[in-house]
Amino acid sequence: MRLHELPTPALILDRGVVARNTAAMAKRMRGHGVALRPHMKTAKCAEVAALATAGQFGGITVSTLNEAGFFARHAFRDITYAVGIVPGKLDEVAALERQGTRVRIVTDDAGVARAVAERAESLGVDLHVLVEVDTGLHRAGVAPDSPELLEIARAIHAAPRLTLDGVLTHAGHSYHCPDVGGVRAVAEEERSGVVAAAERLRGAGLPCSVVSAGSTPTAVHAESLQGVTEMRPGTYVFFDLAQVGIGSCRVADVAISVLATVIGHSHRFNRLLVDAGSLALSSDTSANEHLPGVGYGLASEDPGRGGTHRLRVAQVNQEHGFVESDAPIPFEALPIGSRLRILPNHSCITAAMFDRYHVVDGGDEIVDVWQRTNRW
Amino acid sequence: MRLHELPTPALILDRGVVARNTAAMAKRMRGHGVALRPHMKTAKCAEVAALATAGQFGGITVSTLNEAGFFARHAFRDITYAVGIVPGKLDEVAALERQGTRVRIVTDDAGVARAVAERAESLGVDLHVLVEVDTGLHRAGVAPDSPELLEIARAIHAAPRLTLDGVLTHAGHSYHCPDVGGVRAVAEEERSGVVAAAERLRGAGLPCSVVSAGSTPTAVHAESLQGVTEMRPGTYVFFDLAQVGIGSCRVADVAISVLATVIGHSHRFNRLLVDAGSLALSSDTSANEHLPGVGYGLASEDPGRGGTHRLRVAQVNQEHGFVESDAPIPFEALPIGSRLRILPNHSCITAAMFDRYHVVDGGDEIVDVWQRTNRW
Repeated sequence: MRLHELPTPALILDRGVVARNTAAMAKRMRGHGVALRPHMKTAKCAEVAALATAGQFGGITVSTLNEAGFFARHAFRDITYAVGIVPGKLDEVAALERQGTRVRIVTDDAGVARAVAERAESLGVDLHVLVEVDTGLHRAGVAPDSPELLEIARAIHAAPRLTLDGVLTHAGHSYHCPDVGGVRAVAEEERSGVVAAAERLRGAGLPCSVVSAGSTPTAVHAESLQGVTEMRPGTYVFFDLAQVGIGSCRVADVAISVLATVIGHSHRFNRLLVDAGSLALSSDTSANEHLPGVGYGLASEDPGRGGTHRLRVAQVNQEHGFVESDAPIPFEALPIGSRLRILPNHSCITAAMFDRYHVVDGGDEIVDVWQRTNRW
Repeated sequence: MRLHELPTPALILDRGVVARNTAAMAKRMRGHGVALRPHMKTAKCAEVAALATAGQFGGITVSTLNEAGFFARHAFRDITYAVGIVPGKLDEVAALERQGTRVRIVTDDAGVARAVAERAESLGVDLHVLVEVDTGLHRAGVAPDSPELLEIARAIHAAPRLTLDGVLTHAGHSYHCPDVGGVRAVAEEERSGVVAAAERLRGAGLPCSVVSAGSTPTAVHAESLQGVTEMRPGTYVFFDLAQVGIGSCRVADVAISVLATVIGHSHRFNRLLVDAGSLALSSDTSANEHLPGVGYGLASEDPGRGGTHRLRVAQVNQEHGFVESDAPIPFEALPIGSRLRILPNHSCITAAMFDRYHVVDGGDEIVDVWQRTNRW
């Protein structure tokens, strides 16, 4: 089947671009002497995970326990669940551990650490734990120089059923840097903060074999990763317009697009209607911070050729996208029924609007269909 | 099972509130002497469709052919697919028609009408068509006084395999009215525009049995629906914060909420972290137009009691929601592991983030689980 025959909206993945993105990140991490533990919250797909872990140690990161279960069923045995744990979620973690999958958990709270220790005892399961460190995102985590860091680490280390593996941070504020220089500064803040936390643990006689950091921008632009043991970028497998805006990649590196059909012409408003609205593209407008005016995504007949008509999805309703341009819309070239491919603002969020990827390899032939796992 | 035992995030539906909302709209439409053809794009759920069509003629509206197929399998036989048709989608429509389900289609383009006529011939199927009229939303549709209106209607009427059923409009711009007076004015614009289009068709000797209009705000606030034959509101089955802001309902009428677990405390930033981020709540911020500061939704222990702590989801990442308040956060009352219910900005979009509804009936016991259909 070819793209023009596929029911729309549909999510298209260019396999060659994913392979190039994943190989480049793997090479970059090898150059730093750091393990790559790709974050699978972006792709949620076994085939992409295989590409992203090729030639690596095989560990991955996930954002939900549903993902952990999915990847465990696909023989991934070393998983970090990088969202703060609560004791009520430990039954699911324990079930995966009993089936032979390491699901490393994360906390930034001494009370939670003690409650996890108790629950691990009653479940009769050994769990591996990281302390979350805040290196500037201010979402979760304790400051590297805080008293809480050692209090939490000691609570974990003292628990018979818990193993203190180390520290973890995520410099997600790199997404808001104005330029590559800013990303480099955040990357150094991320590195130095998490390494300082690790050194405090070791200085207090506590184990700390894992020093985990990473976001796509900081993984791409870090000048030094000295003291870090692993990086956890995720978005880089697909990239997106937000990453283009931050300077992490070029438009040609964006590996996914939403295939849509032109369903209406408005000559009066110089506008096309397409059948990809907020349920296909998501309502995420994050790329506009760095690329003002991209709206809900850039549209073109072939994203490999770039947006020759400077088409953007300016507005979305549930199943309608409003495609506009500062130039006259080429209505003759884009009749009702013709197709556009829309590059997403934020690939993690747009990809989650679909259950599967229709895979191409540079051309317009569907060469494979890859399933995603979604929900919780 | 009770709400505090349910894995999170989860979508909670209060059955009694849906029953009240659907009964009130049915009564309102009966009062106007107008048929109610509820738009199922909001709920995408057979049980909700049953409530919304109770005591009505049984017709529904859908926004995707996936919905059409789903509701056909649930014995709904009179469906209007209210998004502009393209010939490439007619095979799916024809398959449903052959199985005995009327799937009425919509167009605003004479070229499409002629292409649909040809395709209907080659498929050997009879199709029923409405002409889409623009009454101010400026999304799709032809102006009631435009030459195109009659050109399209004649193209449909002349085609052996097509039946011209009438006209359809949607005054979605009612969502942006500053107050109820504004909504009433838009409702009258919607009514008078679509009725004028119908009268032009009849004046030209063309049939026009269906005069279809409607959005939730205009259905709630219209003073007259004279000349309209059916209304197609959708959001009213659940309502949401955007509808509270427009004045279509009260907070107590919002029938769905996202159940989330508190996964972190930040005393420094006076903030709770919850496990409902942009994938559970969506990135839709539409309610802020009328209710500035609601962010990604209002959070409380029990939405029936209102947001006593004035908690709002101020920011979202993929699996993290940042719950903030202008008042001090009651950390003691909301320990890590406790639950919040988040009222959505836009129920059509938030509900689509889930595959099922966990149904309650006023209390915290899960009394049923209702499936949704999603995707395309």
